[in-house]
Parts: sequence; C-alpha cells; structure tokens
Amino acid sequence: MKIIVLKFGGTSVGTLKKITKVAKIITTYVKKKYRVIVVSSAMSGVTNELLSKTKKISQNFPNDEKDVILSTGEQISCALIAGKLIELGFKSRSWLGWQLPIVTKGNYSSSRIVKIQKSKIINYLKKGGIPIITGFQGINSDYRITTLERGGSDTSAILCAKFFKAEKCIIYTDVEGVYTTDPNLTKSAKKINKISYEEMLEMSSLGAKVMQPTSIQEARLNRIEIDVRSTFSKKPGTTITKKKNILSKNNIRGISFTKNDAKLTLIGVKDRPGVAASIFKPLYENSINVDMVVQNISADSRETDLTFTIKLEDLLKTRKLLENNKLIKFKKLIINKDVSKVSIIGVGMVTTPGVTYRMFRALAKKRINIEVISTSEIKISVLINKKNLKKSVEILHQEFKLNNNL
Amino acid sequence: MKIIVLKFGGTSVGTLKKITKVAKIITTYVKKKYRVIVVSSAMSGVTNELLSKTKKISQNFPNDEKDVILSTGEQISCALIAGKLIELGFKSRSWLGWQLPIVTKGNYSSSRIVKIQKSKIINYLKKGGIPIITGFQGINSDYRITTLERGGSDTSAILCAKFFKAEKCIIYTDVEGVYTTDPNLTKSAKKINKISYEEMLEMSSLGAKVMQPTSIQEARLNRIEIDVRSTFSKKPGTTITKKKNILSKNNIRGISFTKNDAKLTLIGVKDRPGVAASIFKPLYENSINVDMVVQNISADSRETDLTFTIKLEDLLKTRKLLENNKLIKFKKLIINKDVSKVSIIGVGMVTTPGVTYRMFRALAKKRINIEVISTSEIKISVLINKKNLKKSVEILHQEFKLNNNL
Repeated sequence: MKIIVLKFGGTSVGTLKKITKVAKIITTYVKKKYRVIVVSSAMSGVTNELLSKTKKISQNFPNDEKDVILSTGEQISCALIAGKLIELGFKSRSWLGWQLPIVTKGNYSSSRIVKIQKSKIINYLKKGGIPIITGFQGINSDYRITTLERGGSDTSAILCAKFFKAEKCIIYTDVEGVYTTDPNLTKSAKKINKISYEEMLEMSSLGAKVMQPTSIQEARLNRIEIDVRSTFSKKPGTTITKKKNILSKNNIRGISFTKNDAKLTLIGVKDRPGVAASIFKPLYENSINVDMVVQNISADSRETDLTFTIKLEDLLKTRKLLENNKLIKFKKLIINKDVSKVSIIGVGMVTTPGVTYRMFRALAKKRINIEVISTSEIKISVLINKKNLKKSVEILHQEFKLNNNL
Repeated sequence: MKIIVLKFGGTSVGTLKKITKVAKIITTYVKKKYRVIVVSSAMSGVTNELLSKTKKISQNFPNDEKDVILSTGEQISCALIAGKLIELGFKSRSWLGWQLPIVTKGNYSSSRIVKIQKSKIINYLKKGGIPIITGFQGINSDYRITTLERGGSDTSAILCAKFFKAEKCIIYTDVEGVYTTDPNLTKSAKKINKISYEEMLEMSSLGAKVMQPTSIQEARLNRIEIDVRSTFSKKPGTTITKKKNILSKNNIRGISFTKNDAKLTLIGVKDRPGVAASIFKPLYENSINVDMVVQNISADSRETDLTFTIKLEDLLKTRKLLENNKLIKFKKLIINKDVSKVSIIGVGMVTTPGVTYRMFRALAKKRINIEVISTSEIKISVLINKKNLKKSVEILHQEFKLNNNL
C-alpha cells in the first residue's frame, strides 16, 4: 500500500468553505492512487474559545476535564471533512483518538503518543475508505481523553506516518513553506526548498511557527520526510529531510528571531560555588525555561553579575521567585523587556570558520549592540535591543546571501 | 446505596454562570447523603449551532458524522460541570457515552439505548465520585458515536435511573413543573403537583414541551418516579408517578394544544375498499405522521370526502405525494393551515360520563366550531380555528375547574 499522510492545520479548516477546499485536495491524492490518511486540527480559534470557557469556570480548571473539552475541536473538524468527502462520493469517516486508539502517556494537556493501534485503519484503507483522524489527542491507560501540547496535531500526523509506514507526510498550512526568515518582517525572506530536520528544529524552537518542534524531532528520529505547503496555493512548499539530501551551497539556511523574551540581570550576587544552581532551581521547579545565560567573571571572587533570559510571560513569576529566594543575595535586579533574540541557523556552520565573526561584524557595522550570545553546533543567537530587530535580520540576510538560498 | 439521578436541560446549563448554579444544586444532594448521578444536555443553542454547520457543508450531511459532531455538545457541558465541582472541592468527572459504555441500537441520529454498563460508575460512586454523564448519546456495536432523537437526554436520565436502580430521577429544567396548560397562553394555568405517566405522556405528545414523550414512556414502563422542577427556583415541582398515587378530585388534569398542524380535505374521492390505505401508505413510507382522520359517509357509495391533519412542516411533501398518487382519484384538495388542536387530558375521564358533552357544550357556548374530533381513553382532542385557541383553552380550563387542580 502506497500510504500518504496529509495533515491540515487550523487555518486550513478554519471555515466551512475551506473545509470544502481541503476535501478537494484530499481527493487529488486519492486519484493519484494513494491510500490517504488525513489528520486534522480543530478549526482555527476553536481551541482558544473552548479554553476561555474553562478559564471562566475556574482559573485552575482541572487538566483532565480540559482535555475532554478541547478534544471536541478536532472531533468536529474531522467529522465535517468526512461528511464533505461522502457528499463528493468518496468513502470516508472520522476516527476519534479513542477509536483507533491512539495511546498516550504522561500528564493531561501535555501527553505524548506512545502507540497508534493500526489494525482498524489498515482494514478501513483496504476497503477504500479515507480515514480522517483527530490530531492533538488520544486516550491514556485510564481510558480517558488526553491532549498533547498545543500544536500537537503536527506530532499526531508525523506519528501516523511512522506507524502506518507512510511514504510521506504533507503538512498543509497557511504559509507556502519554510522561509529564510519571517516574510512578515522583511520582504527579502525567501522560501527554502529543502531544509534538514536539525535546521528546521532550530528554526521552530527559535521562533518560526510553521511547525511544532516536538513533531520535527519525531520526524528526525523516524526519518520521515515532510512536505510543508499551503492549502491555498499550488506552489511547491518546503521539504524537511535528512542532511545528506541537501545540496545547498549556503552554510547558513535561515534566520529566526523572538519578540517575547525578557532579560534579567542580578547585580552583586555573592559568588560562591553552587550559587547559579540556587538561582535556577526554583525556576526549573516552576517550569520556567531559562534560555541564554551569562555570568561575569568576578575579579575579586566575592561578587558577580548574572544575566539570563526567560519568556516574557514568565516574568512576574520569575521576579517573585528571585525576590523570595532565601538562598541567594544580590544588590539589584535589572529587568529589560525590550530585547529580541536573533539566530542564524545552518548545519554547515560547524565546518565553516568565520561565521561568528561575520555575524558580529555585520551587526557592528550597523552599530547594533550585542547584549548576550549563545551558540550551538548549528546556530548562533544574539540578544539585541528589540528596536534593531528588523535592521539586524535584514543585514544578516544580506551578509549570508540568503536571497540565493533556493 | 441511595442513588439519585439529576438531569439538567440545555437552558439549565446555558451559560457558565448557570453551570456554577447547577454545580451548587448537585452539592446539596451530596450533602443529603445521596450518591448522585448527573446527566446533562448540551448548553442551549449549541446543538442547533452544530447542526447548522453540518447543513452548510451539505444538505444531506451523513447521520453518522452528524452524531460525532452533535455529541460534542454534551461532552463540553459535562466536563464544565465536573470542572466546577472539582473547584468546589468535590470528586467529580465527566463520563462520555462510550466510556461506560451506553450501548445503543438503531439508526444514527435516532438510536435507542439498549443497555447502560454499570460497573465503572458503581465503582466510581463507591469512591465518593460524582459522575457527570453525557445525555443524548451512546455508542453502537460498530464502536461509533450515536445520538438519540432530539431531546433524548431525558431518556438518558430515565434509563440511568432504571439501570442504576435510583430512588428517583429529578429533571431540572427552565419551568417550575408541569402546568394544567401552557402558562404562556393563559394566566389561569396552574402547576400540577402530581400527574400520572399516562396523562403526562398525552400532555407531551400533544404539545406540552416539558419532557420528551419517549422518556416518559420509559419511566412508565420501569415505574421510575420523576420530579420535574426548575433550576432557578426553590419551589416544589411536579411529580410524575403511578395512577394510584394520584388523589385528585379532578377527572381532567390538563389541556394541551398544538399550533403547527395543517388540515387537508380530499373532496370527491372515489370510494372503494382500500382507498384510505392507498392514500396513507405513501405518507407512512415517507415518515409523515397522520394525526386526526375523518371520512364522510358517502350516501351514494361512489364518492366520499376525506379529512386528516398532519404537521405543518410536512405539508409540501404531503401535497406532492397526494398529487402524484396514481392509485387514487379525487376532485379537489383543500388545505387549511389556520387550525389548532386542543386536547383535554385525564385518566379519570374514561370512568366519568359526560366529559365529551361538557367539552362540546362549553365550546358551543362561545360559538367555537369543532372541525374534527378524536378521542382516546384518557384524552379528547378537537380541531378548531387557530384564532379561537386562547378562548377555547380558557373556557375549557374554567369548565373543568383546573384552577383547583392542585
């Protein structure tokens, strides 16, 4: 069986008219003799609307019941797609997470899929049916509905491709593919034809919202080739694939950025072994993710300054945790919310000398000050003043010739 | 275990504020040491909204997928109630039809419950939990979601009371109970304290919308006592119970009426054996319910007139079926949409002479013409001109002293 998995995101099924469009796309693959498995998100906006209902009932609405509520979003969109396909003369039906079942483990609202039971779907495919499977959800060993982390429908699709041994997984979304940087920020952004899992993972983690990072990690682990393309355009999209399939001359493939970071600096921290751990432990325990960290070398070994970044949404909580932390002493806490993190990404980077230098030189030429730096094998991130964001992205796009990225 | 079933209708859970109210009502029964099983409808308006989505996708949206969509309404309301109870410090959770399971048979969108698997709920009750069970739905032997006929949550509740051997089933709704007639039509309507299953069945079937007729029939068959009362008032409601529990002096207990009937008269039908069957067969085959029927005696045995009533919504279809029916011949079809059916109901009627006479006399006194009559053991219905509806109900209410009905 030549199986293909098609995944449709929330904006792709956002209106009844768009669902009709989606149904037609599905039939084109059926006509190409594929056995098609469809995975759908909820109609855009629905999940947030349902979430706001739970918040109005209680600010601490229990996660198990929240999952029961949120899962209805995909239940509806999948049944609507199936209904449309039936009207068009195809054999189709919705398959809810619990009906396969899609088995999950872990906490409610952030479960992970551990198994997708194949037999019912395989039988249904053999009979010529088009299964429309709910993304974002499953059931746990308590026989209760669970949901994955937000955006988890991508992961549902990738894992369907894995378990059903699909030739390919196509992610239909509202953009035409993955871009060298956000086209909403600068017109110089170019669509990338092929990108490696590793690069895509960094792009997603660092702010490009095309796909959820967990899903790319799953694709990488299982070597599943992904096409990302637009539901509303016939243009080819971006293929996410193995490194060795990529023949780009460019070492840098993309530039991503964030706008929702906050920088905190603790001035005059008593320097002793373990002080950084004492600072970060309560943050970790409260699920606050510390991103970039710099500790100044303390000249006299008694006091030091510590700078780190967190998500803006965690700022209030972090501030309280720092101020109530009895294990540490510091003179002053400086908070800066006007920061952006700009990252250049490319698997070729590690083997190419001078990338860091070129990045810093390009920014310096435009008198853009770098506040914090962090690097990995395939990316370099710098923290800058938010007002310089557009300028920085554009100068780096030019410096690394991303216009020629195709 | 002292089990009680509480059922909340759509208007009772119509807003998030009302759900909070419902949660508090539930806790009052817990405090009275009841083991409480809750059955809930969808929030009012939700089912219709979902239905309109399916209609926009296709006028012939398949029933199996429609059920998947409609069932989300109760899924959400039940999880919201459970979430609120948890916030109030109680152990609670939503139980979806497929999780017990509630087993149904029959067609999608009009299935009937054949079994409710008890073990999980009994275990949960023993642990002190408050189960919130989705009304209106179940799963069939294909492991797919099914829904009952519209208003089926009443039946879900009654059957929960049956299978779990509940002491009582309380139907919480937006009216204070069952009235002698519709209080929206006339101020003289009085709340009835106790009514028999049989009377209630006629009341519901004949237009009183408090409960769905199927559910009353189930209660009658299983001898389950029902209280109907308001979610928004502390006043006692109406108890629906066995005939012998009712000690009313009144033989007539209520007056119901319809506003959505149409009267059709076929003039000059060739009279021969089987002609009525030839007329009604195609209507039956198209699920059109013929209500009252009168056939004039034909003096010369060759031609006759036939009058019958149907629901207004079936008029167009009926007309086509009659005009295309090659098995019958008639001279003319007269349609009258300005009719109402008024019925007086009471189990004592059959043993009380003169009820019919008193009804006709009261109407005649007000010069109200009776167009068609039909009777059963516990009700007499007359078809009148719609403009006389209010006057008719009021004069009959007075004639049968329903003001003293309590």
